[in-house]
Amino acid sequence: MNLVLLEPDDFVEGDRVRLHGRRLEHIRSIHRASPGDELRVGVVNGKIGRARIESIQKDFLEMHVSLETDPPPPLPLHLVLALPRPKVLNRTIAAAASMGIREIDLIHAWRVEKAYWTSPRVSDANLRTQCVLGLEQSGDTMLPTIRVHRLFTPFVRYELPGRIEGRRAFVAHPESETPAPRGVVEPVVLAIGPEGGFIEKEIDTFRAIGFTPISVGRRILRVETALPYLIARLLP
Amino acid sequence: MNLVLLEPDDFVEGDRVRLHGRRLEHIRSIHRASPGDELRVGVVNGKIGRARIESIQKDFLEMHVSLETDPPPPLPLHLVLALPRPKVLNRTIAAAASMGIREIDLIHAWRVEKAYWTSPRVSDANLRTQCVLGLEQSGDTMLPTIRVHRLFTPFVRYELPGRIEGRRAFVAHPESETPAPRGVVEPVVLAIGPEGGFIEKEIDTFRAIGFTPISVGRRILRVETALPYLIARLLP
Repeated sequence: MNLVLLEPDDFVEGDRVRLHGRRLEHIRSIHRASPGDELRVGVVNGKIGRARIESIQKDFLEMHVSLETDPPPPLPLHLVLALPRPKVLNRTIAAAASMGIREIDLIHAWRVEKAYWTSPRVSDANLRTQCVLGLEQSGDTMLPTIRVHRLFTPFVRYELPGRIEGRRAFVAHPESETPAPRGVVEPVVLAIGPEGGFIEKEIDTFRAIGFTPISVGRRILRVETALPYLIARLLP
Repeated sequence: MNLVLLEPDDFVEGDRVRLHGRRLEHIRSIHRASPGDELRVGVVNGKIGRARIESIQKDFLEMHVSLETDPPPPLPLHLVLALPRPKVLNRTIAAAASMGIREIDLIHAWRVEKAYWTSPRVSDANLRTQCVLGLEQSGDTMLPTIRVHRLFTPFVRYELPGRIEGRRAFVAHPESETPAPRGVVEPVVLAIGPEGGFIEKEIDTFRAIGFTPISVGRRILRVETALPYLIARLLP
């Protein structure tokens, strides 16, 4: 936790917050903090600053907060992600949030197992928790917006075209011969498929609305590896 | 598993292999393969090709193998990695192998908890297993060489200088103002610290032997995110 993320409800008065549960536990057992110590904090979707611990009780701690700086600028990249299996979903969402992605569409695809959609990890509450963990890791405060689309074709045909206007759109496709371009200056929409990739028909649907299939090379990378790799390649 | 990795011991005669255990289970339950089906295979540290399943019994299956192509070229990058906590170690080693890294030095650092070194995951057997999983994911056959160094200073002062000759050497350091350079044409040595980073004294030790501290930006990324990100930035 490189930043303690504060929710509006944590504020008990003007610049004093009270924490319990996971964050209290973390500050106590990992930071091993004592009254008087300072921690890096930020407010969800708001500013970053420092907090001085005033007291640590059994069930809560209180800190005095001063907020000064803006969070880092967002990544100019909108992610369209085929729903990964539940264990990988958590890590991938946390990683996406930690890198500064602000818009994520989770979508169905032919090779996404239907059972994945019934996992409690696809709930708004869990997705938000993973984003919080990612932001606390990276030192950011801006929660991504995550939308969930259980039907591939209506989303790609009728919603996605509106989202790629004024942007460059790429879909990761192991069979493509086009390497990922470097230093794209326009904002990017990046689609990443399930294990085994999008099927040809899905790639055609993406292509029809203006996506370019790109490859990451001869090796097939897991989604949580391919995502930071492609971001670092594509963005300036 | 995008490639079934074969060990020399799997060959029962010239071009016939017999598999049991994990790979048999995977081919049966995930690939749902039957006799006559073809799979992509490769031999550890050797060629890649195809195998046709000849029979599937309760405890083993037999395949006829033909090997044709060389594995993808290695990544010109030598990784020096502060031992991550055990859970992250597995994922990071598998990811490193999947990307084509062939040389890894696992090292101690001030912020590596001593207890991590007692984990069974630091064993040669487990590290090899993680590499195998990474290669099976990416479709490669070349096992990385992993060396383990429980003392930071003797390794960095007396061994590492020999390894960086003729290479560009970088150490990831959140406090550096130098962004990771792009498209480095020489082979690279990349050092990545523990959670919380290398301490200043360790960074000075790296600097003294010719490493350049580089940053990945204002955000602090987990090692398994920072690694593919830096590889994609640094390599041409």
